[in-house]
Amino acid sequence: MSTGARSDAPAASPRLGVGSVTDVPGVLLGHHQRTGPGWRTGTTVVMSRTGFTAGVDVRGGGPGTRETDALRPGNLVSTIHAVCLSGGSAYGLAAADGVVARLEQLGLGHPVGADPAHVVPVVPAAVIFDLGRGGRFENRPDAGFGTRATRRVSARNAARGSIGAGTGAISGGLAGGIGSASMVIGEDADRVTVAALAVVNSHGSVIDEDTGLPRVHDGSLTTPSATRRRALVEAVRRSRRGPNDPASGELNTTLVIVTTDAVIDGTEATRIATVAQDGLARAIRPVHSLFDGDTVFTLSTGRVPLTGESRPGDLNLLSAAAADCAALACTDAVISAEAHSGAPSYTELTGRATRG
Amino acid sequence: MSTGARSDAPAASPRLGVGSVTDVPGVLLGHHQRTGPGWRTGTTVVMSRTGFTAGVDVRGGGPGTRETDALRPGNLVSTIHAVCLSGGSAYGLAAADGVVARLEQLGLGHPVGADPAHVVPVVPAAVIFDLGRGGRFENRPDAGFGTRATRRVSARNAARGSIGAGTGAISGGLAGGIGSASMVIGEDADRVTVAALAVVNSHGSVIDEDTGLPRVHDGSLTTPSATRRRALVEAVRRSRRGPNDPASGELNTTLVIVTTDAVIDGTEATRIATVAQDGLARAIRPVHSLFDGDTVFTLSTGRVPLTGESRPGDLNLLSAAAADCAALACTDAVISAEAHSGAPSYTELTGRATRG
Repeated sequence: MSTGARSDAPAASPRLGVGSVTDVPGVLLGHHQRTGPGWRTGTTVVMSRTGFTAGVDVRGGGPGTRETDALRPGNLVSTIHAVCLSGGSAYGLAAADGVVARLEQLGLGHPVGADPAHVVPVVPAAVIFDLGRGGRFENRPDAGFGTRATRRVSARNAARGSIGAGTGAISGGLAGGIGSASMVIGEDADRVTVAALAVVNSHGSVIDEDTGLPRVHDGSLTTPSATRRRALVEAVRRSRRGPNDPASGELNTTLVIVTTDAVIDGTEATRIATVAQDGLARAIRPVHSLFDGDTVFTLSTGRVPLTGESRPGDLNLLSAAAADCAALACTDAVISAEAHSGAPSYTELTGRATRG
Repeated sequence: MSTGARSDAPAASPRLGVGSVTDVPGVLLGHHQRTGPGWRTGTTVVMSRTGFTAGVDVRGGGPGTRETDALRPGNLVSTIHAVCLSGGSAYGLAAADGVVARLEQLGLGHPVGADPAHVVPVVPAAVIFDLGRGGRFENRPDAGFGTRATRRVSARNAARGSIGAGTGAISGGLAGGIGSASMVIGEDADRVTVAALAVVNSHGSVIDEDTGLPRVHDGSLTTPSATRRRALVEAVRRSRRGPNDPASGELNTTLVIVTTDAVIDGTEATRIATVAQDGLARAIRPVHSLFDGDTVFTLSTGRVPLTGESRPGDLNLLSAAAADCAALACTDAVISAEAHSGAPSYTELTGRATRG
């Protein structure tokens, strides 16, 4: 990536619904969810067999997390192999135990001692609050969800919508879910890929009620008719008056995983995660409240050295791309979700097909 | 507690082996451990049915933690009901799931929605590295350890030594374990109790080899004879040359829980945890390395208002007491431990009875 080469270029404009965190070579993505009677929740795992350099930024006031201290800049662990996102609020942190178990089977983790089978997998995790969305408060992800999501990881997984950790998500009265976006910066051997996956379970909305359009989008969406716009506003009000009342004190959270192949260290990964929170700020209003556990992870496969004249300049480009991808991923999550739990789907209300 | 009343008083000098975190009214302590063939690990839970105001300071470079972000000052969750310490390194974080399950049964947690049974227990946790100490790397605490430790909590539990999360601990070539100490500050209705529990699994030693005495102690210990001192030094060298070689890259960790009944907020609890790390600095050399996950929690039952003329003055007294208790608890852990895994016990080497 060359900072100079990009200075005159227009901002990258990824197409919604095309990008995935797996657009970064070596990144694997897996989901497991359950939606039978009483159930609506799931778990998502982003993994690399060769390891990620990682950073995290926890911005919301009500986070449910695990192993985030291990990622603090300056600490020992510089390589992790997976991050686990899950429904189930604090109960859902158990899903990470299943990811840990599967990584141990694969021999992936922090090596301890002489025996190569002796590893300690460090699996950072964060959760959303979807308890009761499927009907039963007691039904939430356990370790088995994490194991199954990890068994299913694939480099070709670009699924979005009401899957994995986003299965029970609701966003601003509409159905939420999982979205993603990606973009490429630079040219030829210097090409760096940046992508983001978002689990959007937000109190705030990604939709601007004045226009009926997402606050952030790629220009491919057209403004809904006045009739559809009124229907959208009314449906959201109805949903918010019911079980999806944001004033009920329920916790809300948007979780994002940024992936890139740029060679960065843990401090830089943390910085990129911090800037990527700006993507949430642009896409969702309000956001980062005391009831949110908004958290962004940055994971780098470390395959493309930054070659710009200015490393801070390169990192700024990466950070801006991460924020753009995060914002578009948040929009994508709502646009891709199917109606559930009394929350209507944006695409149904605006007469579009839900992207699968 | 009155700052003025204490200004002329001598520093409190708790007796080693007397204090316990349960000296603070309302604090419950429970352990579960397994030491059969292939096993040497366990889990410790500190709990309150009415809840704690909590703070945490993570100082080591290799922490394994869970739900520490929730405790950051300014965040939503101000009351927790339990902290879980465990062996098993990152695998042992699963023990917290069992604590969560038991707290839910008891209806203890962050309330969500109208149904009082619907709670989300926020259980911060931290782990030590004791993998393989019992013979099998694969044997480590799971959720059942957390559930059992929580079922066994008691206000009268003052046990110490090779129990709970300290079962597999080793400290500077000697057997490590669990220690505790407590002290009372102020008089009459202003009496505030401060206590600490330490799980000492440290690379550094609590023993000063020149004197054969702990670096920090309460004066009740006498200097060992020259013969015993030589035997101590030799035994530690032998232990460190074998499986307890600190250069093996194994992770080491000291975990501390400070308890108090002083009315403090989360920010103040965090500050006290930060200062209490000084107790580790005094008792253990070296400490806070990149291979350590040294972590201090502060838990307050919030029953005794601080009444001194200067709140910062009161908090300074509390913090200093917490550091003193933490230091004495670290010493107590080694003095109370029994020999295991090739690591000799301090009391055996110096001809004293192990405190049980």
